[in-house]
Amino acid sequence: MKTEILTVGDEILIGQIVDINSAWIAKELGTWNIKPTRMISLSDNREEMLEIFKESFERSDLVIITGGLGPTKDDLTKDILAEFFNSGWRWDQETLDTLDGFFKERNRELSESNKKQAYLPDNCETIPNKWGTAPGMLFRKNGKILASFPGVPFEMQKMFRKYLIPEIVQNFKVPEIKTYHFLTINIPESVLSDKISDIEDSLPPNFSLAYLPNLNVVRLRLSYYKKLSSDEITFNKVIDDIRKRIVGNIVVEKDILFEDYIYQLLESRNQTLSVAESCTGGLVSSKLTQIAGISKVFMGGVVSYSNESKTDLLHVPKENFKKYGAVSKEVVGNMLDGCKERFHTDYSIAISGITGPGGGSSNKPVGTVYIGIIGPNGKIIEKHFFPGDRIRVMERTFFMAMEMLRKEILRS
Amino acid sequence: MKTEILTVGDEILIGQIVDINSAWIAKELGTWNIKPTRMISLSDNREEMLEIFKESFERSDLVIITGGLGPTKDDLTKDILAEFFNSGWRWDQETLDTLDGFFKERNRELSESNKKQAYLPDNCETIPNKWGTAPGMLFRKNGKILASFPGVPFEMQKMFRKYLIPEIVQNFKVPEIKTYHFLTINIPESVLSDKISDIEDSLPPNFSLAYLPNLNVVRLRLSYYKKLSSDEITFNKVIDDIRKRIVGNIVVEKDILFEDYIYQLLESRNQTLSVAESCTGGLVSSKLTQIAGISKVFMGGVVSYSNESKTDLLHVPKENFKKYGAVSKEVVGNMLDGCKERFHTDYSIAISGITGPGGGSSNKPVGTVYIGIIGPNGKIIEKHFFPGDRIRVMERTFFMAMEMLRKEILRS
Repeated sequence: MKTEILTVGDEILIGQIVDINSAWIAKELGTWNIKPTRMISLSDNREEMLEIFKESFERSDLVIITGGLGPTKDDLTKDILAEFFNSGWRWDQETLDTLDGFFKERNRELSESNKKQAYLPDNCETIPNKWGTAPGMLFRKNGKILASFPGVPFEMQKMFRKYLIPEIVQNFKVPEIKTYHFLTINIPESVLSDKISDIEDSLPPNFSLAYLPNLNVVRLRLSYYKKLSSDEITFNKVIDDIRKRIVGNIVVEKDILFEDYIYQLLESRNQTLSVAESCTGGLVSSKLTQIAGISKVFMGGVVSYSNESKTDLLHVPKENFKKYGAVSKEVVGNMLDGCKERFHTDYSIAISGITGPGGGSSNKPVGTVYIGIIGPNGKIIEKHFFPGDRIRVMERTFFMAMEMLRKEILRS
Repeated sequence: MKTEILTVGDEILIGQIVDINSAWIAKELGTWNIKPTRMISLSDNREEMLEIFKESFERSDLVIITGGLGPTKDDLTKDILAEFFNSGWRWDQETLDTLDGFFKERNRELSESNKKQAYLPDNCETIPNKWGTAPGMLFRKNGKILASFPGVPFEMQKMFRKYLIPEIVQNFKVPEIKTYHFLTINIPESVLSDKISDIEDSLPPNFSLAYLPNLNVVRLRLSYYKKLSSDEITFNKVIDDIRKRIVGNIVVEKDILFEDYIYQLLESRNQTLSVAESCTGGLVSSKLTQIAGISKVFMGGVVSYSNESKTDLLHVPKENFKKYGAVSKEVVGNMLDGCKERFHTDYSIAISGITGPGGGSSNKPVGTVYIGIIGPNGKIIEKHFFPGDRIRVMERTFFMAMEMLRKEILRS
């Protein structure tokens, strides 16, 4: 089944925005084992649009378009599609009602240009937009489907899942996909792949394995669609086989963000956390507090960027900076004690390191980071080295701190 | 001049990574007034690649390809280009030397598969890669150029600027572009555009104006290439005209990140900063500490996520939570005092608000944020309301805090 994704808009072509819609759509399709053959970004230009829509629909069974559906002069997708499919026009009452409600709710007048959004080609089905003003369109021809969505990611995503996915499943008889996830840490994608290459090579053709790496964390997704009655047994056997090979690197067997998992662990145990950060400068606190509801378990943190603040807020003895250096096991130990005392939490994390570009030495090069955890079982402090630029060192440190915390939580 | 950007790699087509190369390249080209007509992402498939390379080169004067240049079996770009351009093969000594140095530096053996990277089509020019292992290739035919780069953004960017830009300028006689930037805040793109629409409409054809919005911050870029001797006078007049219309919303007239500008302001005045964050949970500290060298001015912060920590670390009187609520002018005032006292800095920022999704009330709905600054001129505390989800409320708060701080710094 041939699929292409088209994104329309000058703002993409001039590099003003990065096209994130195509990757999102591709990932969604991936869970149904559909892999797009091309993604094309095109500008708001009549001739180009008509030519590309035509070519793309000729080559494909399914064409998905985002963008170019707004109420302004630049937005040409609807016009061009009507031309391509030789459409007449109709007023769509459902869209009018939705628009009416949308503007009333916001105490705004429904302008003529916005009203026009309910004027649609008469040979397409409406894809309702309950999250914005521009409806989507679905055209069918010779068993093929072309679907057009607004470019706003939030609106497109909601409409895509609610209306297009069921259409695809039905129209193309797409089999249901079952997935299983491993979240792993501290094993590079290439090493992970080597470790299980024989398992991967012997997978039946209706099975697939995807690697989704992010710094020192790799998400492994095993999926299959039902073909044989024995598939489920095979699926479970493959899961067991993979687990045996990489057990030491598995964080959790679930499709979840690392920090969300930590939140769930702490919440289910009614335990609390605080953080003392030096070189990560607030990144750990910031990542944690992006989780809605985290205030139940996260009490707060200290960003002790200067030595004075380490002493003043965390009671690190002044002499330890001279004796051991701010980036040392001893100072991180002091930071742990200070943090626990300040926040009275079950667990505290402390971090001190050198993220660069300056500040490194032969003894402690850029990328050297001490990470400590204090909890019911006492203190653990590890020295790590992370490659990469400033931001990468910080983000790798974050994941490692989460991993050390996870182990400590599960140990007690 | 017709330009297309192609990105090669299954990892893009399955949505595993977002293609950021195309947007980066488009932005670079934009400063030379070149706008790509298409961006195409294609998979590691021989037939597809050959077909698309062909079509694209036929349609265009300039084709830029990234990806598919590594040493593994999946990497087909070099082979397909050799087929397309009817190339023979040659060993490139300079690439061999670079590879040799690259691996020696890392104490690693130069494997056969890596050595093969120096084996290149005999009718292309080498684009040296000093930042990785895969060299780029530049083909010329009938006055057209096709350039191929590795997909690693860092390597591609360095090579692109150093080798391709001068080629483009020379080969296509691209005129030099001059630019001027306004960084603005608290004025939506549409309002900004309305305010200066007559100026924009009357720009000569060799002038252009681009809006680069990011939440409550919009970057405005005016550019032109020389055509008439009076262009420079026109340029300066347009700058003056725009300035007069939007003066109240201008942060700085420079192509710079907001936080980098704040860093420069503080550093040039030898002043220091600390931060007390509640609802932003460390985001302000984290954004600031992503700047290399910030330790000269940023002393640290407190993430006082719980009321207890606001009292314990910042000495917010307990009774004020009951009396005014944690999200109030009074508590932010207490946080400012506490923060300044703790860190002994010239300026402190304090933030308390409701980022949602829970915690809102009719009186203080989700999006309500109090932001305070304390400095040599005393305290300023403002109540703001920011629309959007949790993350957006945090990021808008960050920019607003930077803006309040900027004004306070410039006032003293």
